[in-house]
Amino acid sequence: MISKIESVSKKLTEALQNKIDFKTKPLGALGLLETIALQIGKIQNTTSPKITKPSIVVFAGDHGIVKSKPVSSYPQEVTQQMVFNFLNGGAAINVFCKQNNIHLNIVDAGVNGDFEKEENLIDAKIAKGTKDFSTEKAMTIEQCDLALEKGKEIVNSSFKKGCNTIGFGEMGIGNTSSASLLMSYFTNIQIENCVGKGTGLHDEGLQQKTNILKNVFDKHKPTINSPIEALATFGGFEIAMITGAILEAAALKMTILIDGFIVTAALLAAHAIDKNVLDYCVFCHTSGEQGHEKMLDFLNVKPLLNLGLRLGEGTGVAVAFPIISSAVNFLNEMATFKSANVSEA
Amino acid sequence: MISKIESVSKKLTEALQNKIDFKTKPLGALGLLETIALQIGKIQNTTSPKITKPSIVVFAGDHGIVKSKPVSSYPQEVTQQMVFNFLNGGAAINVFCKQNNIHLNIVDAGVNGDFEKEENLIDAKIAKGTKDFSTEKAMTIEQCDLALEKGKEIVNSSFKKGCNTIGFGEMGIGNTSSASLLMSYFTNIQIENCVGKGTGLHDEGLQQKTNILKNVFDKHKPTINSPIEALATFGGFEIAMITGAILEAAALKMTILIDGFIVTAALLAAHAIDKNVLDYCVFCHTSGEQGHEKMLDFLNVKPLLNLGLRLGEGTGVAVAFPIISSAVNFLNEMATFKSANVSEA
Repeated sequence: MISKIESVSKKLTEALQNKIDFKTKPLGALGLLETIALQIGKIQNTTSPKITKPSIVVFAGDHGIVKSKPVSSYPQEVTQQMVFNFLNGGAAINVFCKQNNIHLNIVDAGVNGDFEKEENLIDAKIAKGTKDFSTEKAMTIEQCDLALEKGKEIVNSSFKKGCNTIGFGEMGIGNTSSASLLMSYFTNIQIENCVGKGTGLHDEGLQQKTNILKNVFDKHKPTINSPIEALATFGGFEIAMITGAILEAAALKMTILIDGFIVTAALLAAHAIDKNVLDYCVFCHTSGEQGHEKMLDFLNVKPLLNLGLRLGEGTGVAVAFPIISSAVNFLNEMATFKSANVSEA
Repeated sequence: MISKIESVSKKLTEALQNKIDFKTKPLGALGLLETIALQIGKIQNTTSPKITKPSIVVFAGDHGIVKSKPVSSYPQEVTQQMVFNFLNGGAAINVFCKQNNIHLNIVDAGVNGDFEKEENLIDAKIAKGTKDFSTEKAMTIEQCDLALEKGKEIVNSSFKKGCNTIGFGEMGIGNTSSASLLMSYFTNIQIENCVGKGTGLHDEGLQQKTNILKNVFDKHKPTINSPIEALATFGGFEIAMITGAILEAAALKMTILIDGFIVTAALLAAHAIDKNVLDYCVFCHTSGEQGHEKMLDFLNVKPLLNLGLRLGEGTGVAVAFPIISSAVNFLNEMATFKSANVSEA
């Protein structure tokens, strides 16, 4: 079911580096923009890469844990309310996608509520929220496989419409808890160091959340034997769907724009399944959620931005997108020393 | 001649903060975007600020020092060649301004060469390059006053056309030397710690540049008694013009987008003349040129981006601009908890 991911071709590395170096600027003077231009050139295997139909897909899902334990400052109904907000264009991700001409898709991955048939909502609901992982596994392996498959299908559909650059976002009250558990499992960092304040817990709430998640981790850890079992145990549906989406985007040689804490947790699962996935990832933003920086260190990557965002929804991707465009644009549009008759160093 | 700068009004601070806090997102979850939205709201003294006709003005000038001393990896003619490149649309700043719909103006502040009359080039030439400050002051006080005045006029002209948000860039082979000297003068940081590799000197060249500038600094320092005398002594014409431009933009209550090492050196002079100028400055990017971070620490400010750019031309402003737009856009366009029927924490 999971497609094979090829490592990017290094055939054009030297030609790309030459093209970058002959632009009218001192060597290396465009910093990370040069790194991104090189990476996207390699992903697309061309010295003239293009970003076509850039898209963000926001996956929404609910989490059983929030019904029994105080892990979030917001009530569960906010997940569905925010999906309506996305559909009505009022959320941060709407504003930033509109500004930067990014196509936005919203997916019901497993929200605890019903939706009318809506043109702009993709129905991929696995169930009305995951089970409570303080007592049982968040989902069955069959549900997890289905979530991975749905994520894969959604990316495939964007790809067929001409999209070659895709980012993912999420909405799900309680999902920093799932992400912390997955982080601890995949990085071997102690759960205490993976838990953060999420949407804004105070110190006491953070301590409580940490204690709860430590018990959950210790209970389930011995029963997990594969990345997919980890996803199924800790959830959520939106995270598993993003894992499937990332794996498929890499298999299709798309440029994958990686957002914050939750999306990087989904990437950790994808990375455990196939390490080649990293070749296709551009890391957009370091989240204000404390565990994110450690995830990035584990993957040995450095994002473009660090603006203290900790909102999710894919906002880190949407805000960083123009900078990624700048990287591709300088490569295609700047004059060379020769074409501009500028003397070299 | 220098206009008075008022500190920004704090009248709307609470109203702005409330507007930010009632948006559908956890408190503070948009990080620096919230800081920028608050600042621009205060600058414009409205809870619905707008960015109108955003512009970047690139000032180009030559430096006498490069004719006698090896302070740059590039020959002086590159300044004029790059101006032609700007006018032909081939430089990095052209690409990024075009991408982000920023109006671009190019100014001949004192290039050592002649230009035909060109619609897109503003002629503000003070002289064909400054004098060599290893033997004499870079310019006379009269020339410096004229440069400040020209910078002021150019900003005024943009303002009259409806621009309320302006950034500055520069081109001038040798101008990191001027900027290092100004930095040492205004910050009292030893000149050795203000000098960097500029367009790409190797270690030996850096040592040579440092020795040359230490001698220049020691020679002139005792003769300088005011910010304007410092500008006149160390140059260049483009830097003095940017100082005038910054002061006038602040007097007109425009949002000023601050670029890298050279522009921040011009700002240090402006700041020494009137500390209120800082209220109007949004710091866009930390340059790869080593002294820049220390300048920013001296001003106690933290820029939005750190992408390792060290190109000048105003590229740090142009690349950061969409993020500044995102700050204004979320403030104006996002739904509130109430309007979107989303439950609060």
